[in-house]
Amino acid sequence: MLFSTLLPLSLLVTRAAALWPRPRSSSTGSSFIKLGDSFKVVVARCELAKELERALENAPILSRLSLSLNSTVVGTLADEVANLYTLDESYSLSVPAATDLTSPTASAHLTARTLVGLLRGLETFTQLVYFLPAADETVNGSRYIASVPLRIEDGPAFPYRGFMLDTARNWYPVEDILRTLDTMASTKLSTFHWHITDQQSFPLEIPTFPDLATYGAYSADQVYSTVDVTKVVEYGRGLGIAVMLEVDMPGHTASIANAYPEHIACLDARPWSTYAAEPPAGQLRLGRPDTLAFSKRVLQNAAKLSSSAFFSSGGDEMNERCYLDDPETKTALEARNATVDELLGEFVRGLHDTLLVSDKTPVVWEELVLKHDLGLANETVVMVWIDSANVRAVADKGHRVIHAASDYFYLDCGAGAWLGRYPNGTSWCDPFKIWSKSYSFNPLFNLTREQHKLVLGGEALLWSEQAGPENLDSIAWPRAAAAAEVFWTGGSVKEGERSVGEALPRLHDWRYRAVQRGVKAIPLQPHWCALRPGQCDVEL
Amino acid sequence: MLFSTLLPLSLLVTRAAALWPRPRSSSTGSSFIKLGDSFKVVVARCELAKELERALENAPILSRLSLSLNSTVVGTLADEVANLYTLDESYSLSVPAATDLTSPTASAHLTARTLVGLLRGLETFTQLVYFLPAADETVNGSRYIASVPLRIEDGPAFPYRGFMLDTARNWYPVEDILRTLDTMASTKLSTFHWHITDQQSFPLEIPTFPDLATYGAYSADQVYSTVDVTKVVEYGRGLGIAVMLEVDMPGHTASIANAYPEHIACLDARPWSTYAAEPPAGQLRLGRPDTLAFSKRVLQNAAKLSSSAFFSSGGDEMNERCYLDDPETKTALEARNATVDELLGEFVRGLHDTLLVSDKTPVVWEELVLKHDLGLANETVVMVWIDSANVRAVADKGHRVIHAASDYFYLDCGAGAWLGRYPNGTSWCDPFKIWSKSYSFNPLFNLTREQHKLVLGGEALLWSEQAGPENLDSIAWPRAAAAAEVFWTGGSVKEGERSVGEALPRLHDWRYRAVQRGVKAIPLQPHWCALRPGQCDVEL
Repeated sequence: MLFSTLLPLSLLVTRAAALWPRPRSSSTGSSFIKLGDSFKVVVARCELAKELERALENAPILSRLSLSLNSTVVGTLADEVANLYTLDESYSLSVPAATDLTSPTASAHLTARTLVGLLRGLETFTQLVYFLPAADETVNGSRYIASVPLRIEDGPAFPYRGFMLDTARNWYPVEDILRTLDTMASTKLSTFHWHITDQQSFPLEIPTFPDLATYGAYSADQVYSTVDVTKVVEYGRGLGIAVMLEVDMPGHTASIANAYPEHIACLDARPWSTYAAEPPAGQLRLGRPDTLAFSKRVLQNAAKLSSSAFFSSGGDEMNERCYLDDPETKTALEARNATVDELLGEFVRGLHDTLLVSDKTPVVWEELVLKHDLGLANETVVMVWIDSANVRAVADKGHRVIHAASDYFYLDCGAGAWLGRYPNGTSWCDPFKIWSKSYSFNPLFNLTREQHKLVLGGEALLWSEQAGPENLDSIAWPRAAAAAEVFWTGGSVKEGERSVGEALPRLHDWRYRAVQRGVKAIPLQPHWCALRPGQCDVEL
Repeated sequence: MLFSTLLPLSLLVTRAAALWPRPRSSSTGSSFIKLGDSFKVVVARCELAKELERALENAPILSRLSLSLNSTVVGTLADEVANLYTLDESYSLSVPAATDLTSPTASAHLTARTLVGLLRGLETFTQLVYFLPAADETVNGSRYIASVPLRIEDGPAFPYRGFMLDTARNWYPVEDILRTLDTMASTKLSTFHWHITDQQSFPLEIPTFPDLATYGAYSADQVYSTVDVTKVVEYGRGLGIAVMLEVDMPGHTASIANAYPEHIACLDARPWSTYAAEPPAGQLRLGRPDTLAFSKRVLQNAAKLSSSAFFSSGGDEMNERCYLDDPETKTALEARNATVDELLGEFVRGLHDTLLVSDKTPVVWEELVLKHDLGLANETVVMVWIDSANVRAVADKGHRVIHAASDYFYLDCGAGAWLGRYPNGTSWCDPFKIWSKSYSFNPLFNLTREQHKLVLGGEALLWSEQAGPENLDSIAWPRAAAAAEVFWTGGSVKEGERSVGEALPRLHDWRYRAVQRGVKAIPLQPHWCALRPGQCDVEL
């Protein structure tokens, strides 16, 4: 593994501390230090060693970095990740002046109040190090830190900083997910939102209901066993990343019918466009006590598997016609003289009761508070996906918000229609969201000062109609890194707190590092431009 | 290497001979045959063996396929590839009925008039074979051919079927190019159009002028040596693919100034948008005998390296202002009382004289016949890129045409603007060209019957402002395969000769095979749809 960026010396000089995401504050000098061959990381409290083993393995073995935890209580990473959205992720990092390195015990210092804070700081330290080949090719090059003395005070603007992956429309091997977690960690993202099931397939092994995956997955090889999910959860934990599962309900559940057809209304009804946003149609039946009990047990089991304090019960794109044309649901509606929304409210509140008992805060897609009036508890967290303009309405209802808007953060937009027999079909959420579009997002836009505290953060999302392991890296990175900085660094491009012109050279650096680590992050410009910051800017 | 597609049995039955591109004609039966473990390919004339060694290595070692060449003269692949655009690439393939396989010498038969024809037929044979796992997992599965007896008569509608790669804006390792040639062969493409140099870098080693690459490449590691180019040419030859180099002139040459600044006008002039379509500005000087002599020698050297009968001298996006503001060119224009077009004509005709002496037919981008009146010889082949509507004007001037239109075949369109400081920038050639858009192209559209013979074929193109080895496969495939069928199979979607609905299930098959071979071709739909042809079609 490489832990430094190989760049020409000229760039090293002009790009002092090209960190991504940008720290809250930093001060730099103008000297260089060279990291000695015997560089080591020194842990100030030995009980940290085990917990940080993985991160330390990844850390550069160069000169000397002292880690210390400014806290009377040392928790476990498991505790911290379970409480990530109220955790102090901040850290301080200092690299001494070159002149202060004469003492053999001279050290860089990293301090934080939590283990996750130390992990965030270690990532920053890693990004400070650049490799330069020796002029004589037969000699090894060296690793350097520029702009010392250097002092960084850093912490996130928002606690929820996510990446969502849909593993149901097309399936991804676990190794691709682990690599994605590594890449997420390199941008200080905090949450892997795993949209693990959908109408096309149900790849999640649910212990009490093994038939769901046995019959609902694309194949026996395309299942996430509980061992797999645990592996992902534990790998994420080592990186300070919480895994938030989503089992989308009551829509997007046709795949459940492969094992339990009795729970699904309007299964594969035609034309599909009357009954669902995409084929195949099918939704969990409402007003059916068996189905609610089943759904609650599915969530209860899935909640046990995930490490985030949040759990998403989904709730997007419910189709009313599906229920009105389903004889069984129709009977229930008539027998109780109820509306679809009344039965939907009963269903969703039932699911959320189960989540709360499982110590999970329920997360839903925006329709469940904006389109339907279900009387969901105020604690329910709402993901806004249809349009970023809808955030205000959610906040006005008093719900906490996670930004996931298609107009800024959908990685799949702009690739054309995926439906068949549609030669000129365009993407519903055209155009393609370029990195700078995501980057220009203001997380607090259009909210009152009072509402600012309702913003938990945001995420970049990859829906997989036209994605799979083949383009996971290339469609996600470096664009998802742009979203990561929006929610770590905060601030507004309009107010000049962030700038796409300032950010691009740093993002190039981040991308070269990612490629060196084996991530197929795409070039945003010709290499010529990356070598010459600003010279490929548009002239408007 | 795998040479068969693994699919559920239900699909094997419904998808008789899911070949890509579709053969000119085929007849199929309804039986299956199983290919024996000792299947072998039998070569009817032993002198074929060496030439086809590579293709045979790739062929399934299953039952027995007899290859024969219906020609009195057996040429070499080198000869054939050098004459690819007038070569007979047709072949006949028959697979006997299951009932005729009782004899131990029963054989499938592949006949062609050329070695390249045999290669095309072998690819077809490979696509006939499907692998089915055994019901008992401890036993090996078997390979099958469906729909026997089967007889295919096939040959291309157009001789030039290409894929263009720009390796100058971002660089690609040779291994990526070789893999791309394999993928091209699997769609029966005939020409690798290697846009090898541009204004950002000059990675091509030119023997007489080594400084061009030494100073013009991004780095010493990002050079295509003559050994590298020869490797690509020979690898392509083994697949029946010609390599057509393009050294774009006189525009797109700023990178030459790194070694030979005296030949470049308006080098890096600002603002770049006044002097070039993208940064950095710089064009080969016109009206300067030294520069013409230098450019001719560069082309002469490059022409020796390539295997195609064609060679492209480029010629797109010449900027007139660059010359008018360049003191040296201005002096030449005034001294000779000439227009820029007059000097441009002298320059381009000079280059083409050199190419003709090198036995290469010159290829140019459309501006050199539509925008400038240079008196180019009728033999000059013209690539239409700006708009497919311009093909008619080129044909009206009597030039042969290669379709390369941005509105159908540009793989890079739709990914947003790549210039810096441009948050809402869209791609100039929006939207993204989905596979079915390319597929719906009619190569003979808007031409008179008399002009049909001027159409040599077409190509899919990848410009690399936002592409590199990281997304080469995923941005190119399977979309470039759609273009491949347009020019192999010919015909029109409008006239019902081809259909996007019929094509999609076959293209899914092609893509699953490509993925099995290690090509990161992206899914066009959820796997659910690929398993159920037609069920994800749009309902308009």
